Amino acid sequence: MSANVTADFIFGTLATDDSRLDVLRAAGRAVHHANRTVPVDPLPDEPVELVVSVGTEVAAARVVAWYSTGDAEPTPDAPHILLEPGHVVWDTLLWGYRREWRGSLPTQPTGTLVRYRVAAETHDGPVIWADPDPWTGLPATFAYHVDRLGVPTWLRDAVVYHVFLDRFAANAGVFWDMSLGLDQFFGGTLRGILDRLPYLAALGVTCLWLSPVFPSPSHHGYDATDYLAVEPRLGSADDLHALLAAAHAQRIRVLLDFVANHVSSDHPAFRRARADSNAPERSWFTFDASGAAYRSFFGVASMPQLDTDDRGAANYLIAAATHWLRQGVDGFRLDYANGPSHGFWSAFRAAAREANPDAALLGEVVETAELQRSYQGRLDGTLDFLLLQQFRGFFAFETLSAPAFAAFLDRHLAFFPADFVLPSFLDNHDMNRFLWIVNGDTRRLKLAALCQFTLPHPPIVYYGTEVGLSQRHDLTCLDGSRRLEESRLPMPWGADQDRDLLRFYSDLIALRRRSPDLWRGRRTSVAATAAGLYAVSITTDRQHAVVAFNRGHDNQRLELANPPTLALATASGVRQTHRDLFLPPMAGALLLAQT
Amino acid sequence: MSANVTADFIFGTLATDDSRLDVLRAAGRAVHHANRTVPVDPLPDEPVELVVSVGTEVAAARVVAWYSTGDAEPTPDAPHILLEPGHVVWDTLLWGYRREWRGSLPTQPTGTLVRYRVAAETHDGPVIWADPDPWTGLPATFAYHVDRLGVPTWLRDAVVYHVFLDRFAANAGVFWDMSLGLDQFFGGTLRGILDRLPYLAALGVTCLWLSPVFPSPSHHGYDATDYLAVEPRLGSADDLHALLAAAHAQRIRVLLDFVANHVSSDHPAFRRARADSNAPERSWFTFDASGAAYRSFFGVASMPQLDTDDRGAANYLIAAATHWLRQGVDGFRLDYANGPSHGFWSAFRAAAREANPDAALLGEVVETAELQRSYQGRLDGTLDFLLLQQFRGFFAFETLSAPAFAAFLDRHLAFFPADFVLPSFLDNHDMNRFLWIVNGDTRRLKLAALCQFTLPHPPIVYYGTEVGLSQRHDLTCLDGSRRLEESRLPMPWGADQDRDLLRFYSDLIALRRRSPDLWRGRRTSVAATAAGLYAVSITTDRQHAVVAFNRGHDNQRLELANPPTLALATASGVRQTHRDLFLPPMAGALLLAQT
Repeated sequence: MSANVTADFIFGTLATDDSRLDVLRAAGRAVHHANRTVPVDPLPDEPVELVVSVGTEVAAARVVAWYSTGDAEPTPDAPHILLEPGHVVWDTLLWGYRREWRGSLPTQPTGTLVRYRVAAETHDGPVIWADPDPWTGLPATFAYHVDRLGVPTWLRDAVVYHVFLDRFAANAGVFWDMSLGLDQFFGGTLRGILDRLPYLAALGVTCLWLSPVFPSPSHHGYDATDYLAVEPRLGSADDLHALLAAAHAQRIRVLLDFVANHVSSDHPAFRRARADSNAPERSWFTFDASGAAYRSFFGVASMPQLDTDDRGAANYLIAAATHWLRQGVDGFRLDYANGPSHGFWSAFRAAAREANPDAALLGEVVETAELQRSYQGRLDGTLDFLLLQQFRGFFAFETLSAPAFAAFLDRHLAFFPADFVLPSFLDNHDMNRFLWIVNGDTRRLKLAALCQFTLPHPPIVYYGTEVGLSQRHDLTCLDGSRRLEESRLPMPWGADQDRDLLRFYSDLIALRRRSPDLWRGRRTSVAATAAGLYAVSITTDRQHAVVAFNRGHDNQRLELANPPTLALATASGVRQTHRDLFLPPMAGALLLAQT
Repeated sequence: MSANVTADFIFGTLATDDSRLDVLRAAGRAVHHANRTVPVDPLPDEPVELVVSVGTEVAAARVVAWYSTGDAEPTPDAPHILLEPGHVVWDTLLWGYRREWRGSLPTQPTGTLVRYRVAAETHDGPVIWADPDPWTGLPATFAYHVDRLGVPTWLRDAVVYHVFLDRFAANAGVFWDMSLGLDQFFGGTLRGILDRLPYLAALGVTCLWLSPVFPSPSHHGYDATDYLAVEPRLGSADDLHALLAAAHAQRIRVLLDFVANHVSSDHPAFRRARADSNAPERSWFTFDASGAAYRSFFGVASMPQLDTDDRGAANYLIAAATHWLRQGVDGFRLDYANGPSHGFWSAFRAAAREANPDAALLGEVVETAELQRSYQGRLDGTLDFLLLQQFRGFFAFETLSAPAFAAFLDRHLAFFPADFVLPSFLDNHDMNRFLWIVNGDTRRLKLAALCQFTLPHPPIVYYGTEVGLSQRHDLTCLDGSRRLEESRLPMPWGADQDRDLLRFYSDLIALRRRSPDLWRGRRTSVAATAAGLYAVSITTDRQHAVVAFNRGHDNQRLELANPPTLALATASGVRQTHRDLFLPPMAGALLLAQT
């Protein structure tokens, strides 16, 4: 890796070893539930077992769960169950024992939102709540919605294109002004996207994810002042309707970016709440006792955090979301989805699917695999940040060996249930672009994209990645500060596009769309060597594929018993003979056969 | 805690947070078995499931276990089983996934020693062995012995007295010379112990654990030059026989201290091995390629480590152990028992029990609870170092709250199987004495001893603790070095003994021995408060006890529904009324009733 490229820092609460240790230790000492239920996503008339870890510092006489359905709160006068002490777990990190307690909440009919709180009661000391809010100390309210909702079928087969609105396409006749600072407005619009629909249709994508369209003071829009209007810079509600109609006519779905975690400090609700402690919106936010300080997104004062367990805040957000779904929007990418509670998402999803039975909800949850999995039944899936790190570790930084990458992929795919999607991506608007971290080496980008597009989950392409858009500087400055905007350069059009790369992406997308079921077939690793060769066989009843990657620095030969036919190569030097596949360094291939 | 008392440093491989993290990370990346079988201690005609964790960096195509019975080695031409991939585990510490593989070895008849090796086979890379030896890189050989052996009954009810031979009792007419350095010889002997048997019988102990009696150049004897003789300074083989006979006549058992991990560099076997690479004893030890360096106990050159998987070394050790058992020795305390392999202990135990069906084997394993538990069926138990740390954390250093201590005890007792003992102790010859770390506060010592003697497992008293023996200096010097000898001051006799403390210990031992079954009864915590009150109820069909501890700095009142009668108080201020027990600071009580 070149001296001016920094190792990945993926934004999130668990980005460093120290933060992970802190979280593990804190959880191991306390009463920890974290929505761990069996099953994760309960069906009607199915009992729901709660799993609660009682940590090293808690001597529990009883463990209780109070629960409610309907409007009541799960307070200590609500119905409750007692959990039973079970399995004792030795924890080397804490040098002590935890104990798992288990108990079952009763079955409920379809459409029930079950909310509950969990606490350990000590012999004569205080009640110790599971996972209290770190800011307020108040008990967590856990929840699940009893239904038979599953992942929308269209989403499983989607190829998603991620548009950063201000930087993708300006209105006709307007050109990018490259002298602007990257935190200024470049002039991308909804109408610009509409004009570029033919490009997107030709590329073959089936779904657009638009960065925030709501009114906001910033170029990125993740601090909205209104959830029911369109930011005038980007266009009008009519423009959005026109884009939706045109996209749908081409069988392209459209997802909006939705921030339930926080609003702009200029949002009228926050202004009223801040000015008047008796304002109805006061309870949407969390003020401290003095009333001066308030809870905000990672402490950023311009982004006050919503209390999504507050009924007023939740109703506002859900009303806004269902409004857009009824306008024809196909779903949402949900920013910082681990901020709002599981209970909020349970209610949000039920309402969203009532407004649009095909609505898709994808969460940004940069967290452990365990936490991501807990969103089953609350969201349709979470953006695959774990895979992103492995993609970059293996294909770009070479910090990961082929065996370690193969082992990760195998287990990652096995870890998550069938009813959950993990949309994959190589880069986004908050990190160095993939092409930047590989110093513009498109061979590596093609290898990684081939891997991404032959996995079971829907791939996402960040605008420009398909035509060689990179950066001018690293995201991390010499002084250690980060300028995320570096990954948001304006989209190149016309002669500025890398035609070869674009053709590769079009071919890849076409191949993926031609065999939608194949990618969810049975996967078996057939090679994973220290020299950087990785190959996997994928089979269904009707098809057979082999995908092979040489991320090494030497030529590689892969011998296969009954090899399918070469369908796509990432480089010109790839050759196939009777039983052998030859791969030059940084080259990959897809072999395909009908069986 | 006073300025001249240091926090505990308990000798062992996992003494620090960093070493624990290193071990967790290394295990999580690799192929890890660590003798994890279900069941831990197989019975005749019972299949044995192996559990193998395949770590983040290993892409396993197959996981294989080769096994052998009898004399054959479990090499790759031996019979084998294939394990099946199972459960995927997310590991936040490693930020990746591990996978558990499981498979069952076939049933075997009584008396079979099963030895096996485990490896992951990769697609086209190397075979990766489970838990290879860190020094040689060679595969670990795991083992279990199929039998119906259990913990000897007498051991469960034993009260053990730990004698450090050179410092306990000199021959008649010889007195301690306190001007000697603590690494010199003070003159304690076997005959000295014999003379003091009336003292030990009056105290009420039922078992002596003697520090090493074999010839050795050191005052501690943990570096033997001969395993079949008695160190002349300590006495003769006849003296040992006389002590055994006299002790047995008083129904007192005698355990010897046995070091299977290493010998003295003056041991003739090592001298021959070192001098001649063709010597038959060469393979007892592990020399590097040059033949100059050899493996030793924690790198101490005077203590070369034995390879207990070498047949010659194993036979020598087992022959020595059975020799002493046939002389009437009742078993062994096994020094650094996690050095030798599980396979060695399996064979050692089978031979020991054949020589003496009542022989007890207790291991020194300063390690995780999981590793300790894996010795079931190989040893009868392990010295309870985990509890030791908690005793000292709660009763001495106050680094542990009563709820945390209660939670630990509850789970610790539940974690281990019934067929395994965890002898408890407050101090030993390798750490600051308990009375030193509490600045001589016998109230705290009595509290801790009351806790120790009311637990299910056999208590050990380190010589002198019962009469107020402490230290002159801390074990840790100002420069950070440690002088373990400080905990080995000579035993005070006569007027130098704390009579009050001795009476307390005699009473405690008598109470314990009066109700041997009670301590294995059902335990329920009835109090565990932030103020330092901890109380537990213990019941059997015929008896009921409450043990209460006030480790706090204020008076405490404990209200009990049907309180038993005060049987022992650790301090004069303890009072009982109709339903209430009053405890002054640092006082405890035992209440007893027949039901």
